[in-house]
Amino acid sequence: VHPLRAAEEGRAMDTDRSLAQVGAGLGIAPEKLKKCKELCFNEEFSIPYFRFKHDVEHVEKGTVVFLGQKPEFMRGFPKIRRLMTLSAGLGRHFKDRVIAEEKMNGYNVRIAMVAGSLVAVTRGGLVCPYTTENIRHRLASNAFFPDNPGLMLCGEVVGLMNPYQTKSYPEEKEFGFFVFDIRDRLSGKPLPLADKEAMLRKYGLQGVKNLGTFPVNDSKKLLALVRRLGDDGREGVVLKDASMSQQAKYTANQSTNSDLEYAFTFFSDYGQPFFYRRLVREAFQAYEAGLNDEQLEKEAAALGRSILLPMVRTIRAIASGKEVTEDFELRVPSMDFGDAFLEHMEHLGVRVSVQKITEDADGIVLRVKRHYPSTNDKTRAYLAGEFCQE
Amino acid sequence: VHPLRAAEEGRAMDTDRSLAQVGAGLGIAPEKLKKCKELCFNEEFSIPYFRFKHDVEHVEKGTVVFLGQKPEFMRGFPKIRRLMTLSAGLGRHFKDRVIAEEKMNGYNVRIAMVAGSLVAVTRGGLVCPYTTENIRHRLASNAFFPDNPGLMLCGEVVGLMNPYQTKSYPEEKEFGFFVFDIRDRLSGKPLPLADKEAMLRKYGLQGVKNLGTFPVNDSKKLLALVRRLGDDGREGVVLKDASMSQQAKYTANQSTNSDLEYAFTFFSDYGQPFFYRRLVREAFQAYEAGLNDEQLEKEAAALGRSILLPMVRTIRAIASGKEVTEDFELRVPSMDFGDAFLEHMEHLGVRVSVQKITEDADGIVLRVKRHYPSTNDKTRAYLAGEFCQE
Repeated sequence: VHPLRAAEEGRAMDTDRSLAQVGAGLGIAPEKLKKCKELCFNEEFSIPYFRFKHDVEHVEKGTVVFLGQKPEFMRGFPKIRRLMTLSAGLGRHFKDRVIAEEKMNGYNVRIAMVAGSLVAVTRGGLVCPYTTENIRHRLASNAFFPDNPGLMLCGEVVGLMNPYQTKSYPEEKEFGFFVFDIRDRLSGKPLPLADKEAMLRKYGLQGVKNLGTFPVNDSKKLLALVRRLGDDGREGVVLKDASMSQQAKYTANQSTNSDLEYAFTFFSDYGQPFFYRRLVREAFQAYEAGLNDEQLEKEAAALGRSILLPMVRTIRAIASGKEVTEDFELRVPSMDFGDAFLEHMEHLGVRVSVQKITEDADGIVLRVKRHYPSTNDKTRAYLAGEFCQE
Repeated sequence: VHPLRAAEEGRAMDTDRSLAQVGAGLGIAPEKLKKCKELCFNEEFSIPYFRFKHDVEHVEKGTVVFLGQKPEFMRGFPKIRRLMTLSAGLGRHFKDRVIAEEKMNGYNVRIAMVAGSLVAVTRGGLVCPYTTENIRHRLASNAFFPDNPGLMLCGEVVGLMNPYQTKSYPEEKEFGFFVFDIRDRLSGKPLPLADKEAMLRKYGLQGVKNLGTFPVNDSKKLLALVRRLGDDGREGVVLKDASMSQQAKYTANQSTNSDLEYAFTFFSDYGQPFFYRRLVREAFQAYEAGLNDEQLEKEAAALGRSILLPMVRTIRAIASGKEVTEDFELRVPSMDFGDAFLEHMEHLGVRVSVQKITEDADGIVLRVKRHYPSTNDKTRAYLAGEFCQE
């Protein structure tokens, strides 16, 4: 038995007592809770917690309940749906005007103060020790949390130094956190946009860019803006109602191509829906942008390059005896922390290995390789003449 | 109750008696058979038959057993596996040399004489009344069948006038049948290549092209041949051992692009694996062909065009109020036959409607539209601003 598993079993008995309290807090019958929660422990963050692996009635997947003296809640971040066509979509889902905020390409985290410490939770509802550690460095002394114990910051972590997604932004190359929502921890309800912006200003917190307000009957300007963002290597927008009663996302084809290029490098480790959805998405944008034949040719060529070139590079690398991996860096406070965190990643099914350890004034930097066994194995097999597994 | 269903139920009792005979013929316990067969009837071809919906032990999916006075068998056509890399694949699966036959892009049928009449069965093991009718026109008087009642012709139907696949070949624009294998109906065993070719010559039957014999250690010539076939709008090759103990298929990227272009027109009606496999396939060929940067750009652009342009065309057409359909023509001996056949197609889940009926000296030509509800509905929904169903 894995030591973590043993600890879980021992402590599950105690935590079962909390189910009634948790159910009361969220308005769900405790029996319903039992089936859908997963009990998690985290060496770094000592309070055990439930995470919701699926939606349960009105409670979103990713909701977390910390089981301290009394339960502490962090509601899941709701799914923001995607528009395929702006021209009809704006008027269909929004009244009069929408505010466009930049959608950044990183990973979604929620941050709150739990039992006196900041904790960062990923979209799926797992405490991320790495993000928690880095966020504490930045925000531990911010008065937002003591002043607003019932609120959480929802935002995007971007930059090259994280284990999930490595896209650098000029404004934050290594590790940046940009707030997009401030929400009530228990109800999940977001602050209206103006209140959120006032709050961010008051506490000196970094928010995602507000790109302006657009009338719903003029989608052209918005589409042009999104495509300019794409040209600048940025992802797209989240469209919001000022009251936060409606949200929608829309992204640039150039960003979709970057995703494709990245994922096709590991073509057998990504799901087929990942690829398919993006191909369809690009066609709707190419249509709506009203591209002429020549522009359409260019758009098609860019798409084709994002598919074919990364796969050919992968095949060439593996043919020459190399392993195709994803390389990234992590900044950790100690080697013990680094080891524990990488073990946590392996526990989550991510295969990683440390390539290089360097120290600088700010601490330790680990150069980490993420392994993609399926892509490497399959490519080797095909190069060795094995039949296609169709 | 559908009249066909009622007939099936009435006649299933009788046919159950045949199970022991069928099992004996194929070497399978009758109980095993019961679960995996589907009893089919066909208004046009009056003998009821079992078809194997799945592999059962050594008996392939698609195997058909006609239940006349005594059972008559047509074993399923075996799956021919695909090579992703010729250079290693040839030597791995073949000895010394391979014979390359052209792989044509149509649909696979098996033809045999059953109870005194020719019958054409599709890959899945369904009698196709349309193909049967057309094949009878061509082959009914051929001495092959009376001379060889235990054999079946396995071949590709190509051309524009069929309900399954519409690709025209210069040598057969409307309806052509090209034999690739001659097999024993009961064992499924193929004749060695030389015997097959002698047989085709003897009976004046049209076979797929033999493109030559290639040493297994010289894959370059073969790859160049396949890519030339692609340039000519043709699909690729089936590689065979002279004794027919091994087979493999390999196709040109240009042909893969045609498939993609066709399928992306109906992007929501084709399965995601259909798209994904083809993208991966193209990368292996681009790698193996040793394309330089410029050639790779061209290959990528062609791929991108095959994805983006058909989807944009579809979206434009639907945005302008049209329905995106597949149009094809069928030549039928009578309107009764045409109606019955289209009903048969609907029964198989294919939505069709007749657009135009014309008569010429050879009979009746139906202009048929095949409908693709999923692509049309989804595109309309996205154009109306509905959120993406991800």
